[in-house]
Order: sequence, then C-alpha cells, then structure tokens
Amino acid sequence: MSTLKQHVEQIIAYLSERGETISVAESLTAGGLANALTSASGSSAVFVGGITAYRNEIKSTMLDVDPSIIEKHTVVSEEVANQMADGARKVFGTTWAISTTGAAGPEPLEGHQPGSVWIAIRGPINQAIQLNLEGEREQVRNGTISTAIATFARILKFRTI
Amino acid sequence: MSTLKQHVEQIIAYLSERGETISVAESLTAGGLANALTSASGSSAVFVGGITAYRNEIKSTMLDVDPSIIEKHTVVSEEVANQMADGARKVFGTTWAISTTGAAGPEPLEGHQPGSVWIAIRGPINQAIQLNLEGEREQVRNGTISTAIATFARILKFRTI
Repeated sequence: MSTLKQHVEQIIAYLSERGETISVAESLTAGGLANALTSASGSSAVFVGGITAYRNEIKSTMLDVDPSIIEKHTVVSEEVANQMADGARKVFGTTWAISTTGAAGPEPLEGHQPGSVWIAIRGPINQAIQLNLEGEREQVRNGTISTAIATFARILKFRTI
Repeated sequence: MSTLKQHVEQIIAYLSERGETISVAESLTAGGLANALTSASGSSAVFVGGITAYRNEIKSTMLDVDPSIIEKHTVVSEEVANQMADGARKVFGTTWAISTTGAAGPEPLEGHQPGSVWIAIRGPINQAIQLNLEGEREQVRNGTISTAIATFARILKFRTI
C-alpha cells in the first residue's frame, strides 16, 4: 500500500508528463489538501492554487456555489462538493480540481455528525466520494486528505481517456 | 514556551472575544497556515477563508499583487508579502490577514536560497518578518507556519490598541 507521499509523487509525475494542472477548493480540510499536494518537490509545475472557503458565503462568492443548492442539500453534500470543485477549476483554469466539505467536529454541522464528509474530483473524469470517518477533528481531516489523494492517484493510474 | 496548538487556541479565544476575523494568503506554506489556524475547535467563528496563490499570476489575479512589484522586488520580498496579506484582507473582508512567501526548496526561487521566507501580518497592527530557515522542504514550511502563528499570538497578547 502506497503512502501519502508516494501518492503525491505519483500525481505530480503523472500530471507533469501530461502537461496537466490541479487546484483545490477546501472547506473542512482548510488548506491541508493543498499542503499535501505541494509536499513534494516538482509540485509547482502542476499545482496552481487553492481556495479555503471555510464560510458558506465564501463558497458562493469565490467558488460560485449556488446558495440555494446549499440550502436544499446542506453544505455537506455531493452537490456542494461538485460545485466547489467546478468553481476551483474555473477560477484557476486547471485541468482538475478536488474539493472537500464535511463536519470536522466536535460539533455537528447542519445536521451532519462529525466525520461526515464529501470529496469531489472534477476534470476529464468525475468522481464523488462520501466518507463517514471515526475519530477526533485531526483524524477526520487527515483521513479526508489521504482519501482524496489516494483516490485521485488511482483515477490517474487507471485512466483510459 | 507555548506549543503551536496553544498559540492557535489563544488566537481563537482572543479574536472570538473581540469579534475579529482572520484570513490567509499563502505561497510556500500552501494551505498549511490555514490548516493550522483551523486545527482547534471554535476556529469557524474567526477564520473566514484563505487563498493559496502558488503561481505568481494567481498572486496578481486573486490577491491584487502588482506584477511590477514582483518584478522589482522578487516574489520573496516584504513588499509582495504585504500586498498578499492586504489582498486577503480585502477579498475576505477580515480584520487581520497573514501571508507567507518564500523558497521551500530544494531549488532556489528567483535567486533566493531555500529557507528564505517573508511573512506579513496586516491589520490594526502590521508586522513583517524575514526568516532564513535551515532544513528540508518540510522543515522550512513548518518553521514558517509556527513562526507566523507564534508571532500573531504575541501581537494579540501585547496589543494596546
């Protein structure tokens, strides 16, 4: 099983070779995903930038998430995760974007228990992932980051288009 | 000596009590500062959002950093750090903003050796900090994050205005 660092190196190598780029839109991981994606040297060739949209109003003003979608589906939803990633792709002009939204804890968020998370990967291939993680705030955030990166590495590895 | 976590808790408690807010604009730390500031519960009351502007063009388009300032002073400079933090304050409408820019390594950046860093804290009190850190990429980034947070906690603690 690959470590987080190996996955990041695989992602950087793959995207560099293809001339593709990535950005992120983060809520509960709040910069942790961007930080992980830039933890290996060579990341500046593929990582363009990221937005941490911690408040709902920032998700709308900076990532163009429709406030009525947040109201209808709550902020911890596939729909909001998809719109966040689409917003990042547009703002940063990248091939791919990854978003995270969820309840880090210790309090529930809009009716969702701590550990309830959505990740969206958007680009030539789209994938949304729902997680229900155990543990404290730090475990929930780190579990989300490692899952997002492992899933994205796997998408790139088995990509046929 | 306080740990990073204690400093973050002090910052959250202080800003919550005052009804003040914070945002970040990050280059070399790439989300790590936002992640640290939201590592303790209660952060959502004071942390609004952040921009990771990894590429220079993103610093200009999203944080309104003047490209001629980058050209004149290089991206690792007090002037660019100040403009990044001012940009975040404006975009997120926060009381305070903290920015980071520097060479994480292993390669030099615009003539600056790895470990050369500027941090800017902007708000009711302004402070810029220059660092020359030793070590690998991870140590440089973590040293920048802990210095930014310790300095900001100290500014708040001894604030007289």
